[in-house]
Amino acid sequence: MPHHSTITFLSDFGHQDEFVGVVHSVIRSIAPEVAVVDLTHGIRPHDVRAGALALARSVEYLCPGVVLAVVDPGVGTDRRAVAVEVGDGVSVLVGPDNGLLASAVAMVGGASRAVELTSTDHQLPRIGSTFDGRDVFAPAAAHLAMGVDLTEFGPLIDPATLMPGLLPIIGVEDGALVMEALWIDQYGNVQLNISPDDLADWGDPFTLVVADRRQTIAMRRAYREIGTNEVGAVVDSSGLVSLAVNGGSAAATLGISPNDELRIERLDGPSGFSTPVTLGRSE
Amino acid sequence: MPHHSTITFLSDFGHQDEFVGVVHSVIRSIAPEVAVVDLTHGIRPHDVRAGALALARSVEYLCPGVVLAVVDPGVGTDRRAVAVEVGDGVSVLVGPDNGLLASAVAMVGGASRAVELTSTDHQLPRIGSTFDGRDVFAPAAAHLAMGVDLTEFGPLIDPATLMPGLLPIIGVEDGALVMEALWIDQYGNVQLNISPDDLADWGDPFTLVVADRRQTIAMRRAYREIGTNEVGAVVDSSGLVSLAVNGGSAAATLGISPNDELRIERLDGPSGFSTPVTLGRSE
Amino acid sequence: MPHHSTITFLSDFGHQDEFVGVVHSVIRSIAPEVAVVDLTHGIRPHDVRAGALALARSVEYLCPGVVLAVVDPGVGTDRRAVAVEVGDGVSVLVGPDNGLLASAVAMVGGASRAVELTSTDHQLPRIGSTFDGRDVFAPAAAHLAMGVDLTEFGPLIDPATLMPGLLPIIGVEDGALVMEALWIDQYGNVQLNISPDDLADWGDPFTLVVADRRQTIAMRRAYREIGTNEVGAVVDSSGLVSLAVNGGSAAATLGISPNDELRIERLDGPSGFSTPVTLGRSE
Repeated sequence: MPHHSTITFLSDFGHQDEFVGVVHSVIRSIAPEVAVVDLTHGIRPHDVRAGALALARSVEYLCPGVVLAVVDPGVGTDRRAVAVEVGDGVSVLVGPDNGLLASAVAMVGGASRAVELTSTDHQLPRIGSTFDGRDVFAPAAAHLAMGVDLTEFGPLIDPATLMPGLLPIIGVEDGALVMEALWIDQYGNVQLNISPDDLADWGDPFTLVVADRRQTIAMRRAYREIGTNEVGAVVDSSGLVSLAVNGGSAAATLGISPNDELRIERLDGPSGFSTPVTLGRSE
Repeated sequence: MPHHSTITFLSDFGHQDEFVGVVHSVIRSIAPEVAVVDLTHGIRPHDVRAGALALARSVEYLCPGVVLAVVDPGVGTDRRAVAVEVGDGVSVLVGPDNGLLASAVAMVGGASRAVELTSTDHQLPRIGSTFDGRDVFAPAAAHLAMGVDLTEFGPLIDPATLMPGLLPIIGVEDGALVMEALWIDQYGNVQLNISPDDLADWGDPFTLVVADRRQTIAMRRAYREIGTNEVGAVVDSSGLVSLAVNGGSAAATLGISPNDELRIERLDGPSGFSTPVTLGRSE
Repeated sequence: MPHHSTITFLSDFGHQDEFVGVVHSVIRSIAPEVAVVDLTHGIRPHDVRAGALALARSVEYLCPGVVLAVVDPGVGTDRRAVAVEVGDGVSVLVGPDNGLLASAVAMVGGASRAVELTSTDHQLPRIGSTFDGRDVFAPAAAHLAMGVDLTEFGPLIDPATLMPGLLPIIGVEDGALVMEALWIDQYGNVQLNISPDDLADWGDPFTLVVADRRQTIAMRRAYREIGTNEVGAVVDSSGLVSLAVNGGSAAATLGISPNDELRIERLDGPSGFSTPVTLGRSE
């Protein structure tokens, strides 16, 4: 019986090439009874932040066990390959030390131990410098699932030295709530980094400012309750506010890309948090 | 031992985001020994009809057990979430009551029982209103596979009240066979809602009318037997007639989109089924 | 217990339609305890060579067992459907006899036996002529995994009669190393059919000639060590030389498509391997 029965696997490998399949094969060669759950491989290439956000959105739904996450633009350099134990060993996250794992680790209570993956005994012979998913991370995930102790993979490292995640924060500036487009899903819904509570003081409907364009937005209870030709807002499956169009793409309608800065104002204009001088500017 | 060993899963979730992986995780948390077969997640977003057609094309090849189908533009509204038992319990189909399941249910002999999924005991706490795939349908599918009885999920409903599927019918009009482009696959083959028998009276080759353009089409025995620069027709893997181009896309060549109306005429012109008056119109 | 516990599955079916899921269902109906590992289904439609190369790149990492490979533009014609045994029965490759399997077979030591899949006892009733993946190859793979002997599927054929793969070779011409773009992965990296050893005599950096444009390229140890606005070369995960851009697409930057011919020259011009006469041509 393996020690962990599930490896959950996220990457930016896409489905065009055989990268995902080769990683599955390597895992199965080492740990044939362990199931691999593909979380997603559609992370935009090299987008570490998008990978970290997808992990963070999912982590509370994942099976305990090993999480294998590979979005790794620094492959082949001296960025560390790590395994991070959480929940006193209930789960272990494996991946590059580039911030990809940080938010998920934090959401489940932080790291109890961490190790740098240096032991070549638990790696495949490295061919080239470009596919540590196959040569380093997949074998580590499989051996961890089989019960090999964390300390066999290399030296313990201080979890405090792990690269932190860079999550955007919200702020108030010139009487507007300033936020970011966290995620645009395949339907074109735009997840903002604000909860319904964050919106309490800004009214419903409110004014959304995208670049220089202003749009009135109301909270709706479901996509279908957004009117024709309306952009609405819903509480989404992460408990955050998402902009949506009924049967269409809010991102396309509003011209929003991931990471874009957005602002929300009260319908009656920038709020009293701002000074009169600010409000009095002529443009 | 689970009661059903397989959950077959179809959705419009795509592979860009983590939706599919989260559903797998939720199922595995409840029913770790049940296998999940991904039928496809490439249904065009919100295209209930395309999802229903994909299920109908596949249903005779699926393993008995649970079918989980989620194409759900009405998520969060009062559209019902349902489980539909077929074959006296051999299989159960789980999804929104929006017509998605209807054709597949009909093809396997109709519903023996149906239930509305209202019991929160067999759901996850709903976060937001947008992801019943995770919060309602996946847990229901997993608990059904584990042997929880249909009646535990909510009130029995009359199968006759389930939303029917809307399958296009063929007709004869002005001496032409009128049909629809049911499905365009990734190769660009255009599946029509006619069988070879439906073509018996129309000749081979025949005239295909797309918008106002006429094209002579012959039945061929294989894609490779379609000539260069020819659009041909084959009997496809559903037993229906598909338009095809050897090594290319018939849909692109002919400018056809799903659901487009198409007409077939005899090579010698609109057939005698039509009245002279009809034939004599000046345009 | 099945005879082979793994079926590795590669195709050009994509993820838009239900083809992959139906093949999984057919396999699971026949061989419920056999795991199916999806190598990739993102092979460009009908691109037999790309499928053969993906198999060849992966083969040494695959689990022993059955390999099911379907890129089959000739489906429905008299091209043979075959199963090719390698390693005296350790593995069997199943697919069309069109060169798709050839390189992988060669890389694992060649065929010990081969058979043409003609026995309808081990096929599904063929509906139409277009989906042998479902009707012929998947059932064969599943029955082989369950231990049905190769000879049950049809007549033994001489492995020497199998369609060979057409792998591009490199050459020297007019003082340049002439090669081909083998593969462009989803990141835009361009794999060449040369190893670092092949480059030994050509200097580092060297001149890459794409169409008529010349570019200076240096070998780098990792993607991240390629400078801004630089196209570099790395030893990739196949041990071959790949052109790469740090955080971008080398294929897009250089305008390279798969199969394009490329040339490498010494920085100081076409090398002395060429005769003066050749060098002296006026264009």
